[in-house]
Amino acid sequence: MKKFFTALSLSITGIALPVSAQTDFQADSIFIRKIYDTALGEGQSYEWLRHLTQQVGPRLSGSDGAAKAVVYTKSVMEGEHFDNVFLQNVMVPHWVRGAKEKAHIITYKQKIEVPIAALGGSIATPKGGIKAKIVEVKSFQQLRDLGTEKVKGKIVFFNRPMDPTKINTFEAYAGAVEQRAAGASEAAKLGAIGSITRSMTTRLDDFPHTGSMRYASGAPMIPAAAISTNGAELLTNTLKENPDTEFYFEQNCETLPDAASHNVIGELKGKTSPNKYIAVGGHLDSWDFAQGAHDDGSGCVQSIEAVRILKALGYQPNNTLRAVMFMNEENGMKGGVTYADSAKSRNETHIAAIESDHGGFSPRGFGIVGTPEQKAKIQQWTKLFAAYGVHELGPGGGGADIGPLAQQGTVLLGLMPDTQRYFDYHHAANDKFETVSKRELELGAAAMASMLYLIDKYGL
Amino acid sequence: MKKFFTALSLSITGIALPVSAQTDFQADSIFIRKIYDTALGEGQSYEWLRHLTQQVGPRLSGSDGAAKAVVYTKSVMEGEHFDNVFLQNVMVPHWVRGAKEKAHIITYKQKIEVPIAALGGSIATPKGGIKAKIVEVKSFQQLRDLGTEKVKGKIVFFNRPMDPTKINTFEAYAGAVEQRAAGASEAAKLGAIGSITRSMTTRLDDFPHTGSMRYASGAPMIPAAAISTNGAELLTNTLKENPDTEFYFEQNCETLPDAASHNVIGELKGKTSPNKYIAVGGHLDSWDFAQGAHDDGSGCVQSIEAVRILKALGYQPNNTLRAVMFMNEENGMKGGVTYADSAKSRNETHIAAIESDHGGFSPRGFGIVGTPEQKAKIQQWTKLFAAYGVHELGPGGGGADIGPLAQQGTVLLGLMPDTQRYFDYHHAANDKFETVSKRELELGAAAMASMLYLIDKYGL
Repeated sequence: MKKFFTALSLSITGIALPVSAQTDFQADSIFIRKIYDTALGEGQSYEWLRHLTQQVGPRLSGSDGAAKAVVYTKSVMEGEHFDNVFLQNVMVPHWVRGAKEKAHIITYKQKIEVPIAALGGSIATPKGGIKAKIVEVKSFQQLRDLGTEKVKGKIVFFNRPMDPTKINTFEAYAGAVEQRAAGASEAAKLGAIGSITRSMTTRLDDFPHTGSMRYASGAPMIPAAAISTNGAELLTNTLKENPDTEFYFEQNCETLPDAASHNVIGELKGKTSPNKYIAVGGHLDSWDFAQGAHDDGSGCVQSIEAVRILKALGYQPNNTLRAVMFMNEENGMKGGVTYADSAKSRNETHIAAIESDHGGFSPRGFGIVGTPEQKAKIQQWTKLFAAYGVHELGPGGGGADIGPLAQQGTVLLGLMPDTQRYFDYHHAANDKFETVSKRELELGAAAMASMLYLIDKYGL
Repeated sequence: MKKFFTALSLSITGIALPVSAQTDFQADSIFIRKIYDTALGEGQSYEWLRHLTQQVGPRLSGSDGAAKAVVYTKSVMEGEHFDNVFLQNVMVPHWVRGAKEKAHIITYKQKIEVPIAALGGSIATPKGGIKAKIVEVKSFQQLRDLGTEKVKGKIVFFNRPMDPTKINTFEAYAGAVEQRAAGASEAAKLGAIGSITRSMTTRLDDFPHTGSMRYASGAPMIPAAAISTNGAELLTNTLKENPDTEFYFEQNCETLPDAASHNVIGELKGKTSPNKYIAVGGHLDSWDFAQGAHDDGSGCVQSIEAVRILKALGYQPNNTLRAVMFMNEENGMKGGVTYADSAKSRNETHIAAIESDHGGFSPRGFGIVGTPEQKAKIQQWTKLFAAYGVHELGPGGGGADIGPLAQQGTVLLGLMPDTQRYFDYHHAANDKFETVSKRELELGAAAMASMLYLIDKYGL
């Protein structure tokens, strides 16, 4: 009856698969145990992350830090004797924050300083800053209902919080981030002269959380900044007491000409299909005032570590395995686009690409973007992962940097760690090395190495 | 065919259950969603924890802090208008650390200070401290193999680390903690004059992690302390260079007469079976130099919050629900024993008891101690919990404080959060409020409230 039950229980999940596909369970189980032993017992990723965050530091595209990060991660993979380590040229946007950045609330002649940070891509304020009445909205609809009459000449304050009741904080982020990304242009269309957005975090604290914004074509460009959540609470309470409250802010950020930069790639050559590839990556750039420990130094060092572990265990891959440090995820995505374009023009067929860009937290699953058959094949490995607390194979997407590979039929996988603490640090100055747990980081690297191994062994 | 498949898939897990048992899935799913909305949207536990850790502070049994913690948690439950809030008398051991605590390694006439902490229950050193040669062992067997000749008159250094390759860190702890609990007596049997144990953590840092130890009857009592992991590494390396290395330590801890203390209990009265109980609890005491944020302030405030949430939602329980703050888990377990004894003598039938004592981290499951039928009944609720990332119903035990209830047929459940960071803080001075994530704490409270609700509704 055993065979019958196994086939039947698989068929309940929707897709019938041959029982034979699972026959290597024991061998795989043993090999994956070795992967985890290596990751947790002799892991390298934590010390690499220490260097990348504390010695290299912030590394926004076009900055000296980004250039140093390219050199450092290349040297790490060379030091690990990967078969081939090389740079891929990428032209990136080059936005700089400038030295000035200040804001205060003005009510009944009292000035109260609040922490702000210019949004990535924003223009500067005029010299001396902007001072104007401020009008609070919770949605674009509410803004449009106010109309030009009530918005013109004012600063618009977007104050819809991330919904704390969402279990997956990325859903809460998705429900609020339009305010940061598109708020300035929505406000400018109605004559606003500045835009202030509540930071994208469920915590109440004093860190402004930056992030990219875009100006819509046709709308006037107005300066845009994020305000800390404590600042946002103060501002909304002040406005309730005194609707004539004014707001002042100054910032002198600017966009310089595009700069030359690089993706950093390290390979283990495949023995049977060297021109087929499986990539595993994270993005090397971070925001300018953040060490980028969770976003996304973790993903970078985990990717190198995943390949290193397989090499350390003497695994000879069928396909070529690549660790890829993508440049410019934060404000342009040029690295991901360049990588996919290059793969296409060089006929480098990518079977799958795995990205880690949800922080160095305890891994709980992988998001999968592929056909139902490909998903079902990966879900056959559920039991292998469940032993390590990785329970969800399927929900969630791949990752921004690997996204452009989807058009080439590449299966995309995103490491999905526990999401509860991610937005405590996201795009803020407290995204520091000390907030990463060594074990959680290493478990993520082990999960990625295990997925690399299974895909390489069985294909997709 | 649907019925057939459902029954069959359940039978694969080992126990066939009637399909009808799942018919309230939709109603339960809606109610549990409300529990989570309340916990994450209007949660109280985080501010209670802030007070308990930062205003009350350390609260070892018998201390002023413990007395204040009793008063504070009683006042919280009274403030929430629980139906009945009362104290239960418990006599507890009263061990105090004393003001002196220092140690150094002596090699080639050089003294290097290292951080130590007396183990709970240890005696003091003689005034002026102990100075002696130090001998390192990794196991009791290795100690016994050395024999009296090589141990007599020396200090024994127990240096077997927690195994970092265990996925569940509590397993790694279980594999190493005998050194702390019983090492001193094992060493004393061979004539050792002191015992130093490597701190129970996988991290390398400067915090000594204390914890309870017991003297075996018949063995001489010798002073015992924990050394930080960095200190342990230094000591082992020094010994490799110079086997004649000496160690010095002084501590003036002592055991005072037993003290009067309390469990703190708050109830929501059951409407159909008020004399049947479901308890949910944590332990109120902490080690003397720790705020006890994860261990176990989190479990206490989560327990109160779980009951508060059901009350706030207007849920009228069938059975009486109790939040219990147990006293003296760390060094005597008197609160748990007293609670079970009292329940027995008063014929308070406890259907189930739920404990949270694994830290305020993201919840991943519940351990269950009960009959196979009871386990299977709880496991029917798997889908209800999986939506909230709580995937494992079964593996792991209940909890130390609720353990004594097992003899009365009570089903024991232990909240099982992610274990990766727990031993970073366990029994050490860095177990502070700031290390607890508000969302993770609240998710734990919501999982406990959901389990309370399901058990109350369906029985066990």
